[in-house]
Amino acid sequence: MRPITSTLAFADALRTVIDAARPIERTESLPLLDADGRVVARDVRASGDVPPFDRAAMDGYAVIAAETTGASASAPRSLRCVDRVFSGHLPARGLAAGECMEIATGAPMPTGADAVVMVEETARVGDAVRFLSGVTPRQNVGRRAADLAAGATVVSAGQVLTPSRIGALAATGVTRVEVFARPTVALLSTGDEIVQPGTPLAPGQIYDINRFTLETIVARHGGHAIAMPTVGDTIDALVERIDQARQEDLVVFSGGSSVGDRDLILDVIARRGELVFRGVAVKPGKPTIFARLGQTSFFGMPGYPASCLSNAYMLVVPFLRKMARLPAWEPHTIDLPLARRVVSAAGRHQFYTVRVENGRAEPAFKASGDITSMANADGFIEIPAAVDIVEAGTVVTVKLF
Amino acid sequence: MRPITSTLAFADALRTVIDAARPIERTESLPLLDADGRVVARDVRASGDVPPFDRAAMDGYAVIAAETTGASASAPRSLRCVDRVFSGHLPARGLAAGECMEIATGAPMPTGADAVVMVEETARVGDAVRFLSGVTPRQNVGRRAADLAAGATVVSAGQVLTPSRIGALAATGVTRVEVFARPTVALLSTGDEIVQPGTPLAPGQIYDINRFTLETIVARHGGHAIAMPTVGDTIDALVERIDQARQEDLVVFSGGSSVGDRDLILDVIARRGELVFRGVAVKPGKPTIFARLGQTSFFGMPGYPASCLSNAYMLVVPFLRKMARLPAWEPHTIDLPLARRVVSAAGRHQFYTVRVENGRAEPAFKASGDITSMANADGFIEIPAAVDIVEAGTVVTVKLF
Repeated sequence: MRPITSTLAFADALRTVIDAARPIERTESLPLLDADGRVVARDVRASGDVPPFDRAAMDGYAVIAAETTGASASAPRSLRCVDRVFSGHLPARGLAAGECMEIATGAPMPTGADAVVMVEETARVGDAVRFLSGVTPRQNVGRRAADLAAGATVVSAGQVLTPSRIGALAATGVTRVEVFARPTVALLSTGDEIVQPGTPLAPGQIYDINRFTLETIVARHGGHAIAMPTVGDTIDALVERIDQARQEDLVVFSGGSSVGDRDLILDVIARRGELVFRGVAVKPGKPTIFARLGQTSFFGMPGYPASCLSNAYMLVVPFLRKMARLPAWEPHTIDLPLARRVVSAAGRHQFYTVRVENGRAEPAFKASGDITSMANADGFIEIPAAVDIVEAGTVVTVKLF
Repeated sequence: MRPITSTLAFADALRTVIDAARPIERTESLPLLDADGRVVARDVRASGDVPPFDRAAMDGYAVIAAETTGASASAPRSLRCVDRVFSGHLPARGLAAGECMEIATGAPMPTGADAVVMVEETARVGDAVRFLSGVTPRQNVGRRAADLAAGATVVSAGQVLTPSRIGALAATGVTRVEVFARPTVALLSTGDEIVQPGTPLAPGQIYDINRFTLETIVARHGGHAIAMPTVGDTIDALVERIDQARQEDLVVFSGGSSVGDRDLILDVIARRGELVFRGVAVKPGKPTIFARLGQTSFFGMPGYPASCLSNAYMLVVPFLRKMARLPAWEPHTIDLPLARRVVSAAGRHQFYTVRVENGRAEPAFKASGDITSMANADGFIEIPAAVDIVEAGTVVTVKLF
C-alpha cells in the first residue's frame, strides 16, 4: 500500500493540467449541418459575391431614381410599367427613360434602374404607375456583394460555428467545412466489483457509473469518448490495454477503488511514462493522478462516482476544452444565500453540490461514493481551501450543471 | 399585393406563440448514453439498493468497533488478521472476537464487522495488526442503500438529463430511459431564386441560407428538423406540400421573399387552417406569420436570412422549447457599454446584433438580407419598441449566440 503523503494545491494542479494540454492539430471535413458548435480549422473565403447581383430590397417598382425626384401624393410622377421581374430570373430587358418595372424583393435589378419605390408608395392603373414619393439612387436596393464580397473571410480559423455562421457558409455555396477534430478520449476502468448495466449483479458487485458520467461529460465538452473493454488485474494486461488507449489523444482511467488496482496503475505509469502528480487538495477527488504516457496525457480518476465526476468537471473539462480549442467552460451561475451552514474540509478546495430550493442553495452532498450527491443537485459551489466554514445565509455562487 | 397594414406588439406576439405551444406527449426509449440533455418522461425508481451491501469506504481493516475503543499510538490494540476481502467478492467468512480482515475500498463488509480502520492508522507484522486509533460503529463504512434505496426515485418526469443523472440511472442497472420525443419541425421553403449549396448558380439565383440556420437552431433547442423538398409556386402544389408538412409537430415556412409567394401562403392558410397573426412590430422580421393548421402550428418566417434567424431566436425558440418541455432558453449575457449610438426603428422591438470588441458592444447589424449581420456578431441586444435611441456609452446586456 502506498498512501498519498502530500497533495498539490488545486490551483497548482489545474495550472499543471492546462499547461499540459496541447490544442489538437487534426482536422476533418464535415457537412455544414453536422458542424454546429465545432471549431473552424481554416479561414473560409467567399468564392463569389453574395448576393451576386444588385437586387430589390422591397416589393415595388424598379426605377431611375432621378425620374422620381419631387414626387408626392399631391404631385405624383407617372412612369410606364414595361415588365415584371421575378425572383430567380434575370430581367428580360433593361430600363429606359420614362419606364419602370414591377419587381419582387430579392429579384435582380434591371440594367438602367438604380432604385426601388416600395409598392405602398405607388398607385397603378393598367401600365401606368403613379409614384407618390421619390427615391434617391440605391434606395431600397441590396447591392451586389453587400453581404460578402468575393474573397472576404466568411469564417475564421478558431471560430466556433453557430447557426448564423453555418448560414454564412451556405450563402457562399459550400457544402462542407474543415473543422478541428474532436480529441479522442479513451475511457478505461478496472475494478472486479464493476459490472455493466443490463447484466445481473453477483454478490459483492455494483454497476458501472463512471463510464456513463465520463462519456457524457466528454461529449458535452468537445471530445469523442471511446470506452475500452475493462481489464483484468495484472500488470501485463493493464500495460497492454494502456498501450492501446494511449493511441488516443487522452486517457481517462477510473478506479479501481482497491489498493491493488491503484498500486498497479502507478507501476504501469512507471513503465510507460512519467507521473506528473498524485494527490490533489480537493474534496472530493483527492487521489487523482495526472501523468504523461509519451505524447498522451493520462488522468487517473478516483473510483468513487461523485469524486470521479466532480474532478472531471474541475480538471478534465478544462484540459479537454483547451485540447478541443473550445473557449473555457462558463456554466450558468446563480447567486443565492446558503440555506444551511457548511463545514468544509480543512485545507482542501471543495466542490460542494447544492439544490436550488425556495430561493436558497440547499446542501446536497452526501458522500463521495454516492452518485446521488450530484444527481440530486442542481449545481455546485466551490469553497477555497482556506475557508473552513460557510455560514447559513452567506450568498454563494452556484454553478449549474 | 396585400400589404401589412397593422402589426402586433412583440410582447403580444410572444405570448400568443407561447400560449399556443403544447408540450409534447410522445415518448421514446433511448440508450442511456444517447439521452444527455433529454427530458425524462416517467419517474424511474431504483429496483434495488445502491450499493446492495455495506462496503468499506477506506482501504484498511474491517473490525468490530468496540474492540478498538481507546486505541492510540501509545496504547495500540492488536487484532489477528484472518483474511483479505477483495472488491467484487463476498468475504469467505465472518468476523469473530479478536479478529480483523484486510479490506479494500468498495469491498463488502464481512458479517460481524461494523467499522473500518484506515490503513494509515495501523501497523502490521505477519498476521498481527496493531491499531493506533479507535473507530466507532459504522465509521468508514458505506451503508447498503446509502446512495439509493430500492424504490427511491432516481430521476423524475420532467427533469433534464445530465451526466450525473445518467450516472444515477446506470447505478441502478438500467440501460435505457424513457424520454419525451423531440418535436419534429418541418422546414419548408419557396422561392424560385433559392438554390441548394453545392450546385452552380444561374443568373438571378442565390444559395439557400434559411434551411441551414433554421435546421441548426432547431437542433440546438430540442427539435428534430425535417427539411422538405422545395415546392413550385402554385397553390395546389403548396397545399399538397403543407398537407405533408403538417404531419409534423410544427411547420416553419421561410420565404418566399416575393409578393406572389407571400400571398400564396396566405391563401394556403385560409384553405387549411386559421391565421393567428401576420406582422409583428419587430425589426428585423416584421412580416412574420403565425397560424394554426389543424393541430399543427405554423410559422411563416421572412425570407431574408437575418430576419428569418432573428425571429427564430425571438419566437420559434420559445415555442419549440416549451413544446420540447425544456426550460426557457437562457443565453449567456455580458453587460457592456455600447461603442456607438444606435438609432432604433420607432415603434418596433429591435433585435440588434453586436460584436464584443475592446470591452464594448460594437454595432454589427448591416441589413436584414445579410446573414453577416449575424455571422459577424457575437450576440444581440434588444431595444424595446418605446426606445428610439440608445446613446454611446449606455451599458447594454448582450445576449451571446
